[in-house]
Amino acid sequence: MTFHAIIEQATLRDALNATNAIVEECKLNTTPDGIQITAVDPANVAMVDLSINESAFESYAADGGTLGVNLERLLDVVGMGDSGDLVQLELDQETRKLDIEISGLSYTLALIDPDSIRQEPDIPDLDLYATLVFEASTLSRGLTAADLCSDHVQLSADPAAEAFHIAAEGDTDDVDLEVDSDELLSAQVNGDCESLFSLDYLTDMERPIGSDTEVSLRLGSEMPIKLRYSLAEGGVSVTNMLAPRIDSE
Amino acid sequence: MTFHAIIEQATLRDALNATNAIVEECKLNTTPDGIQITAVDPANVAMVDLSINESAFESYAADGGTLGVNLERLLDVVGMGDSGDLVQLELDQETRKLDIEISGLSYTLALIDPDSIRQEPDIPDLDLYATLVFEASTLSRGLTAADLCSDHVQLSADPAAEAFHIAAEGDTDDVDLEVDSDELLSAQVNGDCESLFSLDYLTDMERPIGSDTEVSLRLGSEMPIKLRYSLAEGGVSVTNMLAPRIDSE
Amino acid sequence: MTFHAIIEQATLRDALNATNAIVEECKLNTTPDGIQITAVDPANVAMVDLSINESAFESYAADGGTLGVNLERLLDVVGMGDSGDLVQLELDQETRKLDIEISGLSYTLALIDPDSIRQEPDIPDLDLYATLVFEASTLSRGLTAADLCSDHVQLSADPAAEAFHIAAEGDTDDVDLEVDSDELLSAQVNGDCESLFSLDYLTDMERPIGSDTEVSLRLGSEMPIKLRYSLAEGGVSVTNMLAPRIDSE
Repeated sequence: MTFHAIIEQATLRDALNATNAIVEECKLNTTPDGIQITAVDPANVAMVDLSINESAFESYAADGGTLGVNLERLLDVVGMGDSGDLVQLELDQETRKLDIEISGLSYTLALIDPDSIRQEPDIPDLDLYATLVFEASTLSRGLTAADLCSDHVQLSADPAAEAFHIAAEGDTDDVDLEVDSDELLSAQVNGDCESLFSLDYLTDMERPIGSDTEVSLRLGSEMPIKLRYSLAEGGVSVTNMLAPRIDSE
Repeated sequence: MTFHAIIEQATLRDALNATNAIVEECKLNTTPDGIQITAVDPANVAMVDLSINESAFESYAADGGTLGVNLERLLDVVGMGDSGDLVQLELDQETRKLDIEISGLSYTLALIDPDSIRQEPDIPDLDLYATLVFEASTLSRGLTAADLCSDHVQLSADPAAEAFHIAAEGDTDDVDLEVDSDELLSAQVNGDCESLFSLDYLTDMERPIGSDTEVSLRLGSEMPIKLRYSLAEGGVSVTNMLAPRIDSE
Repeated sequence: MTFHAIIEQATLRDALNATNAIVEECKLNTTPDGIQITAVDPANVAMVDLSINESAFESYAADGGTLGVNLERLLDVVGMGDSGDLVQLELDQETRKLDIEISGLSYTLALIDPDSIRQEPDIPDLDLYATLVFEASTLSRGLTAADLCSDHVQLSADPAAEAFHIAAEGDTDDVDLEVDSDELLSAQVNGDCESLFSLDYLTDMERPIGSDTEVSLRLGSEMPIKLRYSLAEGGVSVTNMLAPRIDSE
C-alpha cells in the first residue's frame, strides 16, 4: 500500500475536526480519488460521512488501503502549523507508521490497527421532506438559546410559513428562535417537520463548523437530520446525521 | 397587572449586573415611572438601591406590581443579544410568566413568587461627611492592590489633604494607594473619615461598573459607604451601600 | 546597608520572571555595580545566574548587602504597573522591609531572612563545544512539538551539518524539529553534541523569554546546557543552566 499526500493545513484540520466531533479514532480510507471517512459514535446516535477529494490536495497518490488514526493525536501534530502551511503525509511501508512533515517538523505517528476501530456504519436512506440552507452561526445561536433552559432542542419547519424553528422546552421556561427569510438562504418544506434532538450531540456536531459556512439541513418528522456542508471550496464534503430523541411528553 | 417594556440590551444588562452583584433573586417593582429595585445580601452587609427611569426605555407601560426574578437566568437570556439590540419584556397575564424578545429569540421566563424573596431593606439615613468623585477604574486598582496582602481594605480621607486613600494592612506587608487631585474629579471632606471593609464585598460591588464610569463615594468614620453612579446617560441610577468591618486590631 | 533603586517596570519584571522560573525565593545581592542573583532549584537540576547592571536603572545607590525576597509576591506588586512605568525600591533601614512605589501605589514588602534561603550554587565550568544562536520562539516551538509525544527532549548538533535538532522519542511516536540556517543566527559546532533534558524544566526556563529574544545555547555531549540571553538592551544578562537526564534506552 502506498500513500503520499500534501494538503493545506486548514483543510486537513477542519476535516479532522469534523470527524473528531463524532469519534476519537477513525479509519482513513485512501482511494485513488481521495480520502473517505465514515464513522458513528459509540452510542449509535451521531454519524459522519466525509470525503476529501483529490482536488483538495496539492499532491496526492494512493493505491487504496485503510489507515487507523487517533484523531486527537493527529490534530495536535497538524496544529503545529498555521492555516496556510502545507502538511505532507506519507505512509512508511516498513514501519507502517505515518510520517508527517509540517513547517520544518517531522513527526512519526503510530497508526492503529483498523480492525480495532468501531465498524463503519451504513448510511441509511431517509425520507426527509424539508431542506433548509443557512449559515452555521444561525444554528449555533439557536443551540446556545436552547441550552438556556433544556438538554434537548426541537427543530421544526412547516410548509405554510416556510420558516424554520430552533426551540426548547425546559421545566419552567421555554425558548424559540425563528429563522426567517432574512437568514434562510433557501428553504424547501414539503410537509410538517418536527424532531427532537440531544443538545450535547448537536452542539458537538456544530462546533467545528466555521460560523459563516453554509450548511444544508434536511429534516423530517421524528426522523434523523442530515447536516451537510463543504470545506476548501468544495474539496471536502461533510454529511452529519443525528438520530432523534423520543419526546417523552 | 400589565407590564410591557422595550429597552436597549446594554442598559438592562448593566442594571441587572449591578443588582446581581448583591443578590441572586430580586423583586422588580414596576411603577408607571419605571422599574425600582432594592435588595440586601443574605448577610445584611451589602445593599443596592436601583431605579431604571421611564426615560431609559424605548417604550414603557406599567400600572404597578412586583415581578420576582432569578437574575442569573434573566441575564443569560439578555446575554443572547448585543449591546445595541432592543429587548422587549412583556408580562403574560394568563401564565404569569415574562415573555422576552431579543434579536429574533422568544424566551418565556418563569417568575418567582415575590413573597419567597428576601424582604427589601430600609435604606438608612447616614451622616457621611466626605464625598469623593472619581472613575471606577481608580477603585478597581486600589482593590486589586489591597488584595495583594489582605482580605480587608481601608478607605480614608482627611479634610487637610483632600486626598483619598485605599489601603490595606496584611500580616507582614501593607499597601496604600493615594488618590490625589489628578484622579479626583471632585472632593468634599468635612472631617476625618476612615472605615474598614470586606474586600470580597467591595470587589463584587465594583466589578460590574464600567471602568470609565464616574462614581461618587460617600464616606464616614467607621460608617457604611454609599457608592453612587448612573448608567445610560442618567436613565439608571444605582446606589450601593456597604457596612464596615470592625477593625480587630 | 542602604539600597535605593529606580527601574523600568518591564526590566524588573522580566528579570524577576527569569529567576522565578527556577526558584520561589531568592537572594538579591546588591552591590555598587547592580543587583546579582544566583539560584538553583530544589532538585539541583536547573540554575539561574542573573545580573541587573547599574546601567539598567534610572537611579541606583547601594553599598552592598543581601535582600531575601519572595519572588511571586514581589512580581504581584510589580505587576500593578505597566511596562513603561518606573518602580522605586528602597530599603527601610529601621523596619528592614522593602518600600516599593509604583504608579501611585506604596507597598511595604516584608523581606525573608537570607539565611533561610537555599544556598547559592557554584557555577560549574563546562566543556561545551557547540554554540547556537536563535530566537527563543524556535526553542519554544521545538519544546511544544516534543511535548506531543514525550516528557523529555533531545538537543543535538553535529559539525558536518551545522544544523541543530530539537527532538523527542515517545513510546510509539517520535518528532524532530530541524533548526537550519534559515533560523540559526549563528552556529559553531566543534564536535557531535547530544544531550537529553526534562521537558518540564526546559519549558519553565524558556517560558519567561520574549519570543523574539536572541538566545545563545551552549551544548555538549551528555552535558548540561547553558542558555544565555540579555534583556533591556544588555542591562540585564541571564545565564540558565540545566543538567541532562541520562537516556535510559
